[in-house]
Amino acid sequence: MTDAHPSSTHPHAGDPVFDLHVGGKMELTSTVPLAGRDDLSLAYTPGVARVCEAIAADPTMTRHYTWVPNTVAVVTDGTAVLGLGDIGPAAAMPVMEGKAVLFKQFGNVDAVPICLATTDVEEIIETVVRMAPSFGGINLEDISAPRCFEIEERLKARLEIPVFHDDQHGTAVVALAALWNALELTGRDAATTRVVISGAGAAGVAIAKILLEAGITDLAVTDRKGIVHSSRSDLTPVKRELAEMTADKTGRTGSLADALDGADVYLGVSGGTVPEEDVARMAADAIIFAMANPHPEVHPEVAHRHARVVATGRSDFPNQINNVLAFPGIFRGAFDVNASAITEGMKLAAAQALADLVGDQLSEDYVIPSPFDPRVGPAVAAAVADAARRDGVART
Amino acid sequence: MTDAHPSSTHPHAGDPVFDLHVGGKMELTSTVPLAGRDDLSLAYTPGVARVCEAIAADPTMTRHYTWVPNTVAVVTDGTAVLGLGDIGPAAAMPVMEGKAVLFKQFGNVDAVPICLATTDVEEIIETVVRMAPSFGGINLEDISAPRCFEIEERLKARLEIPVFHDDQHGTAVVALAALWNALELTGRDAATTRVVISGAGAAGVAIAKILLEAGITDLAVTDRKGIVHSSRSDLTPVKRELAEMTADKTGRTGSLADALDGADVYLGVSGGTVPEEDVARMAADAIIFAMANPHPEVHPEVAHRHARVVATGRSDFPNQINNVLAFPGIFRGAFDVNASAITEGMKLAAAQALADLVGDQLSEDYVIPSPFDPRVGPAVAAAVADAARRDGVART
Repeated sequence: MTDAHPSSTHPHAGDPVFDLHVGGKMELTSTVPLAGRDDLSLAYTPGVARVCEAIAADPTMTRHYTWVPNTVAVVTDGTAVLGLGDIGPAAAMPVMEGKAVLFKQFGNVDAVPICLATTDVEEIIETVVRMAPSFGGINLEDISAPRCFEIEERLKARLEIPVFHDDQHGTAVVALAALWNALELTGRDAATTRVVISGAGAAGVAIAKILLEAGITDLAVTDRKGIVHSSRSDLTPVKRELAEMTADKTGRTGSLADALDGADVYLGVSGGTVPEEDVARMAADAIIFAMANPHPEVHPEVAHRHARVVATGRSDFPNQINNVLAFPGIFRGAFDVNASAITEGMKLAAAQALADLVGDQLSEDYVIPSPFDPRVGPAVAAAVADAARRDGVART
Repeated sequence: MTDAHPSSTHPHAGDPVFDLHVGGKMELTSTVPLAGRDDLSLAYTPGVARVCEAIAADPTMTRHYTWVPNTVAVVTDGTAVLGLGDIGPAAAMPVMEGKAVLFKQFGNVDAVPICLATTDVEEIIETVVRMAPSFGGINLEDISAPRCFEIEERLKARLEIPVFHDDQHGTAVVALAALWNALELTGRDAATTRVVISGAGAAGVAIAKILLEAGITDLAVTDRKGIVHSSRSDLTPVKRELAEMTADKTGRTGSLADALDGADVYLGVSGGTVPEEDVARMAADAIIFAMANPHPEVHPEVAHRHARVVATGRSDFPNQINNVLAFPGIFRGAFDVNASAITEGMKLAAAQALADLVGDQLSEDYVIPSPFDPRVGPAVAAAVADAARRDGVART
């Protein structure tokens, strides 16, 4: 048979990243034997007709006799890819393939990359709804804010399978897990901790929401114009809602520098650089998670001069806030109980499971497990499955 | 890690067909190492960003660095599944998974089943167009006639990747290959051979068209009301066009029995049963391909009493007309040259390659190779790739 992945010369031959990407990063393989007529008569006609008839008579048979209940669509429109921005669906594919292989490696979930040639909210929603019988879940990826919020909410309302925007909730779950451990290490209580988030996009909004659920009460979110509060006249509906949940409660206004003055925790999901003089005015034993990739908002060397616990999004510093700690186990757990949705309780349970794995080894340089810790996927999956049962969304 | 495919008890445990289908028939696996941080930094962030940028700058890089150029979407709306009819998208999935594993096994093509929750022509077209950046080709499957014709034609016009409705063209290619050999065996010339096709659905229309391209001139197609000819007042636009291409040329009218009287070739893609007395009136050394599954229009035992060459769609009789002889090699060949379409020339080349494989061994019981003949996929792929170059649709 002709080679599907010719490894002959390619335009960037010799570059390790491009060499690795030749032919893409994944393949679809059979899990059943197909060696002869007898095999074919079971896996395909005439045998397969009986499986089709069984599902036609009882659609719940899908969960036993198809790959659907273990399969997630990784859906993007290519508008907010990594830090690259709106590069379109074709250029987004390498990230979606990467996501798919991580889903398999860390969660034994079969993930299909779907890059859409539309950025229209209605068209994206309709397209995903029409494809939905093919999948057990939908992972939205790299869709720009604020469109991503509406797309996720409306898909959740229309579909009876898990819908999860990883840029929001994956980041939020891992950040919360690390923050819980950092608060414990520094002897803080959630209810009296002052937190500042820079970035009011997908990740910033989701982190704010999960922190509120986790008991943080003094929270300010900043965008390029400073603290998001209701006195501002330039707020989108999403930011207005965010203001009411956060800075409005404390009456904080002003710049990011104002917000950081005396703050206990800084969570950066904005990119850009925070001046050291602003960081220097944070409280003693400060906590800084500078999560922008590849350039943290505060370089760890700088951060360590003013903070006790420092985390980034990078693998070459301690305490990596990496979504791969969350999304494979969250879908694994949801799929294991055939969940109809991913609830807030399931996300909090995932964060708690991640935080708990650190256990006795908790230290300034170890507030979150490594993505390669083999306990992570199973622990998150088990906690998420339990939460799904508690929340009444488990169907098996 | 939790088992993705629990093999515990299931509702039809002990039934070999259902036992085989537990957990579905396929999985998505990584083709790159993911053992540690260094691997992750190549396959995912930060390395992957450079691949995305390369594609954003030059979209043709997609064909080097993603799985897209080797990936086909197997798209159905579940309206014409096997002989089961309109059973819907969920119940169609086992067939689509079967198709996908055949694509991999016989063509090394990665195939993704997409079962759509709509039967509206416009919605199907829009959905496929929006998904198209994710795939190197579109294989339409089990979509009912006459909608399938319009969907295929309009998708071909809008997309610059191969679009192929297998129920039409796969069947037509294999039937033509077998017919060429049967004509040679019985000493017939295409131009003077009288052919009758029963069934004016997807397969019947496509077989009629490819036979006309192959030089058959005396051709009648029948539906439930008899020969399709322009004097009838009940014809759909598709059948009117078909009539003008076939029976109108010879002026034939009447029933299937009338059509068979003196005919050289009967090709059944209609289901139902043709009375033996009608078959008995065919010409000497008749050729009968009764392709309905699992019940041929003429049982082989009956057919052999009146015909010299008999073929069916079944694996338990000689001369199986099986689409798997065509579609994996056709897409393999198209993908090998990054074809922008599948032309009539590529289909005819596939049929010729299949017919040629029989060679010196041609006999009444061997007019078409076995699906398990390992020469089939490579031979079809090579012929299709050559034809794509000749037809100017090859892009590499």
